[in-house]
Amino acid sequence: MEPIYNFSAGPAGLPKAVMEKAQAEYVNWNGIGTSVMEISHRSKEFIAVADKAEQDLRDLLSIPDNYKVLFCHGGARAQFAAVPMNLIGDKPSADYVDAGYWAESAVKEAKKYCTPRVINAKTEVDGKVAVIPPSEWKIDENAAYVHFCPNETIDGVEITDLPVTDKPIVADMSSTILSRKIDVSKYGVIYAGAQKNIGPAGICIVIVREDLLELASEALPSILNYKVLAEKDSMFNTPPTYAWYLSGLVFEWLKEQGGLEAIEKVNEEKAALLYNYIDGSEFYRNQVHPSNRSRMNVPFQLAKPELDSKFLELAEEAGLQALKGHRAVGGMRASIYNAMPLEGVQALVEFMKQFEIEYA
Amino acid sequence: MEPIYNFSAGPAGLPKAVMEKAQAEYVNWNGIGTSVMEISHRSKEFIAVADKAEQDLRDLLSIPDNYKVLFCHGGARAQFAAVPMNLIGDKPSADYVDAGYWAESAVKEAKKYCTPRVINAKTEVDGKVAVIPPSEWKIDENAAYVHFCPNETIDGVEITDLPVTDKPIVADMSSTILSRKIDVSKYGVIYAGAQKNIGPAGICIVIVREDLLELASEALPSILNYKVLAEKDSMFNTPPTYAWYLSGLVFEWLKEQGGLEAIEKVNEEKAALLYNYIDGSEFYRNQVHPSNRSRMNVPFQLAKPELDSKFLELAEEAGLQALKGHRAVGGMRASIYNAMPLEGVQALVEFMKQFEIEYA
Repeated sequence: MEPIYNFSAGPAGLPKAVMEKAQAEYVNWNGIGTSVMEISHRSKEFIAVADKAEQDLRDLLSIPDNYKVLFCHGGARAQFAAVPMNLIGDKPSADYVDAGYWAESAVKEAKKYCTPRVINAKTEVDGKVAVIPPSEWKIDENAAYVHFCPNETIDGVEITDLPVTDKPIVADMSSTILSRKIDVSKYGVIYAGAQKNIGPAGICIVIVREDLLELASEALPSILNYKVLAEKDSMFNTPPTYAWYLSGLVFEWLKEQGGLEAIEKVNEEKAALLYNYIDGSEFYRNQVHPSNRSRMNVPFQLAKPELDSKFLELAEEAGLQALKGHRAVGGMRASIYNAMPLEGVQALVEFMKQFEIEYA
Repeated sequence: MEPIYNFSAGPAGLPKAVMEKAQAEYVNWNGIGTSVMEISHRSKEFIAVADKAEQDLRDLLSIPDNYKVLFCHGGARAQFAAVPMNLIGDKPSADYVDAGYWAESAVKEAKKYCTPRVINAKTEVDGKVAVIPPSEWKIDENAAYVHFCPNETIDGVEITDLPVTDKPIVADMSSTILSRKIDVSKYGVIYAGAQKNIGPAGICIVIVREDLLELASEALPSILNYKVLAEKDSMFNTPPTYAWYLSGLVFEWLKEQGGLEAIEKVNEEKAALLYNYIDGSEFYRNQVHPSNRSRMNVPFQLAKPELDSKFLELAEEAGLQALKGHRAVGGMRASIYNAMPLEGVQALVEFMKQFEIEYA
């Protein structure tokens, strides 16, 4: 069988080495005769797993001591509600920067708990989709916080700079976390659904500056309350232990790859290979301006959309899976998260070349 | 190696056959070359998994057509908030029956969203812990619903009858669901965290009568909103797909065992074996009155509590794991959910006999 490369946007492929290790120890973890998913979250064995996962994540992101790391139920969508409920305090509004689909979804949910003031950051440069630079975002001086989504999975847009503000910056990093180095100390809250760069769906990481824990309303559901979760080390209730364990294996794997500096280089290389090929071709097209192109999610269109299904069919046969674009954008999308090896992108480009020769 | 029997109260052991199947297809599920946890929840492959899991659960519990089955993020604790937020409507209060630890925890969370009126159902019969029969519970005529927990994992107490009321009955069945036949049509809402009789921690099943979906407040977080989840077939956001898949394997396994009628017989036999041995011994003791003893969670004490740690140490050596009682009750607890084979309880009783002979 040819090697399989999975370009799913999420739930996405996990590192092959992680999956093989998890399989090997599936029914007899650490020699205890049962699976890690079958033991109490309060057992010393699981606490060790949980602590190591947190420490590895702290090491990878250089998380300062005045930040708590929470392993939460649910995905980023749960945080769309949790963020305003935890952070709005006695402020009437918060600023929400809109540069794509997920930023807009966050606004929709936030409306239940505050008045989100939307900063439209969408623009066009040279006929391409682009984002107004964060330095130009006008932050309201009464905003409780500024929310933005640095990587828009569907639009294929990435924002690498930060807004200039003294308000807490809240970032939905679901599809970009751990793909590059960041300075955590510049953020108030970072959150990320696991199913792209962390682990399986059903767990969400929240990194929150300690002083912000005091703002939470008493009325919010305990499982979404950052303060409650922080005080209980994310074990207010039974956490999704297996997802936590797998996330820990991914963190361990990332450290073995050389940490974020090393993986960032690979990610740059992978993205450059694909975008350069697309830009050099008359047959493929990416609609995003080079200054805002996502390194993680690369949407592209064929010059002949009537060939879309043929492209997908042959790609699938060649072991290149899940390349269908989101229905809101159409065409194709290659999600090339940390777990995608360079060889996968090389195989994709090779396939695209052959397809172009045959069908263009 | 001796066979291992895992008596954990939760996350609990899963059926051995399920774990072995899941291990075998871990990195190459259904021959697709990747894991089921690495594919989109909206792919036709995963939708088939999701639909089959729901259908098998419907078959097992004979769920009527006017009930929705939701696969939710989080555990039962999330539902402690979701239940009042979804069901209180314009009523001021709901009735909460208190027969143990988890019923009380539900009350605590409900206080944020309504005025829970607590019905104390705890009593003593012949010096043993007992529950006032449901037929004697005085339900308030203005109650939005009646909440109770039919199996108290920590107290080792089970309630098999239902309150006599025309109000919607809401049951936290986390540690009893699928262990015996029930008449779903008698309930308004049944919910259950997965980590005892369903699957791994991090997913929660909610079975809700359709007419109750109209009561949900707009203000509640979407991921806890039954109506939103029902309309989106539990895919409002990315669900915990791997936990859903594993739950499906457990449902399949249960059907292979002969369904609930068959598993109930095994559960009766397991519980009878253990309680009969305890009752016939001078050395072991169970504090619950026979009429309210849980078939799933059997707490027991040694006549000499100073031997507790010796008991646990030797049990562990004999492959009998996780027998330590909850700190609120002390002593031991054997959780004997569906996945525990009769042989496991036989091995436990054998061990208890030997320990009694040697140390009593």
